[in-house]
Amino acid sequence: MTSKCVGVDIGGTSVKVGLFETTGTLLHKWEVKTRKEENGAHILEDVAASIRSTLKEQGIALTEVVGVGMGIPGPVLEDGSVEVCVNLGWKNRNPQRQLSALLDDIPVKSANDANVAALGEMWQGGGKGYHDLVAVTLGTGVGGGVVLGGKIVAGRHGLAGEIGHIHIREDEKEHCNCGGTGCLEQIASATGIAREARRKMAASDMPSLLRKAGENVTAKDVFDAAKLGDALALEVVAVFAKYLGMALGQIALTIDPEVFVIGGGVSRAGSFLTDKVEAYYQHFTPISKNKAKLALAQLGNDAGIYGAARLVLD
Amino acid sequence: MTSKCVGVDIGGTSVKVGLFETTGTLLHKWEVKTRKEENGAHILEDVAASIRSTLKEQGIALTEVVGVGMGIPGPVLEDGSVEVCVNLGWKNRNPQRQLSALLDDIPVKSANDANVAALGEMWQGGGKGYHDLVAVTLGTGVGGGVVLGGKIVAGRHGLAGEIGHIHIREDEKEHCNCGGTGCLEQIASATGIAREARRKMAASDMPSLLRKAGENVTAKDVFDAAKLGDALALEVVAVFAKYLGMALGQIALTIDPEVFVIGGGVSRAGSFLTDKVEAYYQHFTPISKNKAKLALAQLGNDAGIYGAARLVLD
Repeated sequence: MTSKCVGVDIGGTSVKVGLFETTGTLLHKWEVKTRKEENGAHILEDVAASIRSTLKEQGIALTEVVGVGMGIPGPVLEDGSVEVCVNLGWKNRNPQRQLSALLDDIPVKSANDANVAALGEMWQGGGKGYHDLVAVTLGTGVGGGVVLGGKIVAGRHGLAGEIGHIHIREDEKEHCNCGGTGCLEQIASATGIAREARRKMAASDMPSLLRKAGENVTAKDVFDAAKLGDALALEVVAVFAKYLGMALGQIALTIDPEVFVIGGGVSRAGSFLTDKVEAYYQHFTPISKNKAKLALAQLGNDAGIYGAARLVLD
Repeated sequence: MTSKCVGVDIGGTSVKVGLFETTGTLLHKWEVKTRKEENGAHILEDVAASIRSTLKEQGIALTEVVGVGMGIPGPVLEDGSVEVCVNLGWKNRNPQRQLSALLDDIPVKSANDANVAALGEMWQGGGKGYHDLVAVTLGTGVGGGVVLGGKIVAGRHGLAGEIGHIHIREDEKEHCNCGGTGCLEQIASATGIAREARRKMAASDMPSLLRKAGENVTAKDVFDAAKLGDALALEVVAVFAKYLGMALGQIALTIDPEVFVIGGGVSRAGSFLTDKVEAYYQHFTPISKNKAKLALAQLGNDAGIYGAARLVLD
C-alpha cells in the first residue's frame, strides 16, 4: 500500500482538488464551487468536507494521506498566512492552519498558485526531471513561477515570478493594469497579442486573414493565421516572440535555470510558438549556447493540483 | 579560543588571502603574486605555502582552521571542478581538491569570484543581516552575484548573475564583447559611462566640465561633474540610471530579493548614484512599493576574501 497526498487549487470560480499517489499518479480529481459569500468564510469547510467524502468513496482513510497542499490566488507568507486575497474575499487569515484544523490536524502546506503550478510542471509535466525551472504562463495575463533546487522561490515580498510586469518594451505608450508601461504582459498575453493584431490591422492596408475577425481578433486567430503564412499575423507573432525571448534571456542571465516551461492558453500554438521565441531568445543571449532550454507545459489546468500535492512531499 | 577560517580570492595578477575568526572578524590579510607560468600550475602551491607560513607567524595551528574558501575567476561546477579559467591558464582541474591535498586535507570549498563577493557583502558588508541579495558590481564591466536563502545561486550552466549581458537598451547599435548589442554592461560599466559621455559631447555643443577631459573622460569625471550640476554629465548619469534601474526592476520581479548591493569602482559616487538609480527602479516597478531596497557595497576589494571565508561555514 502506497501513501497518498492531496492537491487543492483554489480559484475564484471553482476549487480543483486532486488525490494522488505520493509517487505522482493522479488517482481522482474533482471540483468544488468556490463559495465566496461572507468573504469566503466557507471555502475551506467545503474543501475539507469534499476531501473527506471523496476519501470515503475511494475507501481511503485520512491517515493514509501524508498531507494536503494548497495553491492560493495571492501572496502567501512563509508561515502560510495571507494578508489579502482579492478574488476570494480573504483577509488576514492562515488558510493552511485552518484547513489542517478541519482535517484532524493533517499537515497542510500552501503557496501562491502560479508558483505551485510551476512546481507541478516540475513534478509531472514539461519540467519533469529538472530541479531549476521557470514556468511562464501566457493566458489573459502573463504569470511566472520560479523553482530552484526543487523549491519554490516566492521572494521576500511575494513578487518573485511577477515576470508579466517586467518593463520590456521601450516604445509602448499605453498603460498596463499595474500602472507601468511596456510590461511583458502587454505583449505576450492573449490580450496583448490580440491588441497588437488590432494595431497592425489599423496601421496598414495589408491584406490578412485576420481582417475577417476584425476587432474581435484573438491570439488563437493570430497563431492560426501565422501558421498558414499570413504576413500580418507573422508580424504580430514576431513582436510577441521578440519581447518574450528578450525576457527569457534576462531571466536566464539572472538565475540560469535548466528549463523554461511555457504554458497557458496561448501556448497551445505549440512548437510553432516556442520555435519563434527560441530564435529571439538565442539572439539576445549570444554569451553562451549552453543555457536553459524551452519546453511546453504539459499539465494544462491540472498543473495547480499537481504542484499543490507536491508541496507536502518535502 | 574561537575557530578560524581562510578566504582566498584568486585574481589574474594577485591572490588575496584573508584569515578570519568564524564570527566574521578579519584578523590578517595579505597578497600572493599569481604565478601564471606553466598554465598556472604553481598558483595553488604558492597559496598553500603562504597560508602555512602566515598561520605559523600568527601562532595558529592548521587544525584550528575549519576550512579554506576560494573564489575563482571563472565558472565552477558543483563538485568544484573548473573546465577553463582563461585568466589563470587553468583547464580541467579541481582546484578545491588540489588545495585541500596541499593543506593536510582541510575542507576547501570554491565558487565563482563574483558570486563569492556577493556572499561576502551578505556576511559582513552592505547586505549584512539579509539572506536574499543580488550584488551588482559596476567596474570595467558589470558583474553580478545572486544569493538566495544565504546560498549562492550559481546557475545550471554557470550563467547566474551574468546581468552585465542582459539585453536592455533597444536603440544601441554597437556590439558588446559578448557579441550582443544593448547589454547592461555597455551602459552601466565605467567604460560604458565614459563612452556615453563621449557620444553626448560629440552630439551637441552644450558646454560642459567634461569637455576639458575630452576623449579621456572617465566615469568618475562624469559623476563629479554631475554632482556639480553639469547638465551634460547629468544627462549621461540619467541614461546610466535609467537602464540600471530598469534591470534591477526586472530582477526584482523575477526573484524578489531583500536588497541589491551596488559595488565596484563606479559605486564610489555613493548615494548620489543610488538615489538616481532608485528613482528609475521605482518608475519601472509600479506594481508594488514593498520590494528590494538598494544599498551600497561596503567591503570594496575585500568582498572576495570575506565571501570565500564564508563559503566554508555552511
